[in-house]
Amino acid sequence: MDYTTDVAIIGAGPSGLFMVFECGFLGYKAAVLDALPHLGGQLAALYPEKPIYDIPGHPKVLAGDLVKNLEQQAAPFAPTYLLGEPVDGLEGTPGAFTLKTASHSIHAKVVVIAGGGGMFVPRKPVGVENLERFEQNKNVVYAIRNKAALEGKTVVIAGGGDSAVDWAVELAETCAHVHVVHRRPDFRAAEETVRQMMELAESGKITIHTPYQLKALHGDDALREVVVADMDGTEKVLSASHVVCCFGLAPNPGPFAKWGLSSEGDGVERGQLAVHRPTMQTSQQGILAIGDIAGYAGKVSLILTGFAEAAVAAKQVQALINPEKKFKVQYSTSKGVPA
Amino acid sequence: MDYTTDVAIIGAGPSGLFMVFECGFLGYKAAVLDALPHLGGQLAALYPEKPIYDIPGHPKVLAGDLVKNLEQQAAPFAPTYLLGEPVDGLEGTPGAFTLKTASHSIHAKVVVIAGGGGMFVPRKPVGVENLERFEQNKNVVYAIRNKAALEGKTVVIAGGGDSAVDWAVELAETCAHVHVVHRRPDFRAAEETVRQMMELAESGKITIHTPYQLKALHGDDALREVVVADMDGTEKVLSASHVVCCFGLAPNPGPFAKWGLSSEGDGVERGQLAVHRPTMQTSQQGILAIGDIAGYAGKVSLILTGFAEAAVAAKQVQALINPEKKFKVQYSTSKGVPA
Repeated sequence: MDYTTDVAIIGAGPSGLFMVFECGFLGYKAAVLDALPHLGGQLAALYPEKPIYDIPGHPKVLAGDLVKNLEQQAAPFAPTYLLGEPVDGLEGTPGAFTLKTASHSIHAKVVVIAGGGGMFVPRKPVGVENLERFEQNKNVVYAIRNKAALEGKTVVIAGGGDSAVDWAVELAETCAHVHVVHRRPDFRAAEETVRQMMELAESGKITIHTPYQLKALHGDDALREVVVADMDGTEKVLSASHVVCCFGLAPNPGPFAKWGLSSEGDGVERGQLAVHRPTMQTSQQGILAIGDIAGYAGKVSLILTGFAEAAVAAKQVQALINPEKKFKVQYSTSKGVPA
Repeated sequence: MDYTTDVAIIGAGPSGLFMVFECGFLGYKAAVLDALPHLGGQLAALYPEKPIYDIPGHPKVLAGDLVKNLEQQAAPFAPTYLLGEPVDGLEGTPGAFTLKTASHSIHAKVVVIAGGGGMFVPRKPVGVENLERFEQNKNVVYAIRNKAALEGKTVVIAGGGDSAVDWAVELAETCAHVHVVHRRPDFRAAEETVRQMMELAESGKITIHTPYQLKALHGDDALREVVVADMDGTEKVLSASHVVCCFGLAPNPGPFAKWGLSSEGDGVERGQLAVHRPTMQTSQQGILAIGDIAGYAGKVSLILTGFAEAAVAAKQVQALINPEKKFKVQYSTSKGVPA
């Protein structure tokens, strides 16, 4: 699908979400893109239940609650969220950029990279025959978007953490059968959910295969058989039409390197993009960066730093889109926000 | 009294309060000085009941509540608050500064100026004979610190806003008599409190003099008579031992100009001190500035900017006090704060 907006923000972590507010407050519309299927970046993916103590004005706030607050704060400005697909391509020139994901094209006047510590993408299994072919036809997935599509099917869940166990229990209700394949004998997941899974295994709704790993996928157009192997190479063949891989998330540097953005500069660390501190602009006009991915002399990589950088970047958004307009700090106490 | 601390923070507004947290988190003790008798700077003095919408993670927060949250967030690090007296003198050299107020000397390794839009000091009446003499012996005050000291006395309250009317009603309970002197016929204060004051005037506990202004103060060591005059110069003499002036607050540039700190630099606005952005250091080693008073290229003067500057300044505090220690960002989720 095609979207047209003022500002495309890459990354739905805290800096990206607050950037929506700062853009909106100055009158600019924003779309936010993230490879993860939810808002909040690392806060939501890695530590939603952990308390943070250094968000100013919040003596203690759970990471997940901070994300909810930021979403609520951005809401009056009606952002477009495009989640669950990494950004790949960037085309165009300053004032008229186009970002590409697998299913969307986003046209924007300004691009703001709020990429945090990198793009978090699902970890993939290695050495599995025909993996890519069945990823393409979506018989192998890394997140379940539509549970109904698996109804009545036989599904293999690979992994041993919370997601694997949660999904095993949940899919056992609606699927014909669920196989759980895990390379260790024990599961690192909530005790109560593991207990439920074991009960479902006893009742025959679930079959648990440990210590086994995915080895090969067979079928014609559609997946038909999943070959799993133990540590000694002993194989088993499972009849199944779908595989859900739950191996957690791995950081990925993202597509920024191939966009030719400079990482050279005083105080710029590995994995960061160099920005001009007074404008938060990268080496490419019209492309800004904020949050942990933005590097400059004196940077302190904290969430609260990204917030302040968003305010500077929004000022630069105005300078780029409406250069004739003089910037004046506006106070939210006087101006308010849309209802 | 004498105090010794690591960091002396001038200004108890939002940046100053959050600076306590940032210092504490790195292991440094702080004392906070403010001319106002309460925490929160302008937020508490001028608009405690106004909602703010652009504090990240707070979709809407009353200014007064934000101050309470920041105080609570700083509390684990047990700051020393020295309120109600402007800072005047600065002596010493980097690593060993001494700040002076009327009654205190504060010895600190680093000074952080979080002076906001200037020092807010009580507005004084003009052209009142002998004012200074009776300010010195504290028969004339601008804020009531100790209500008990006025018990059984005859007090003149000058002013017509909320503080004047609130204090008139409150002091009428415990004072021998209260005179209210206001230069306009009407009072700009909460209706209900004005009504209570009028009732106390009818019952003889309060005498209201409008439109009158303070003209002269007489007495020997102690104040004995307050002369007030109307617009035509007609005078009345009130017998009273104390005067409480409630004329609101006026901004004052503060003592920083005479400390020789530079205000010259790209992006530095009138009333700001120039800082080196990567360290928040002013032109004088060991003296940092954060918040609205700190100027540099690209500055966006918002509360959230001051918060991020506090994190940078705390890093510099460590560089100044423990230059041998390598700075590493520490996460509050992992490290926590003292109970």
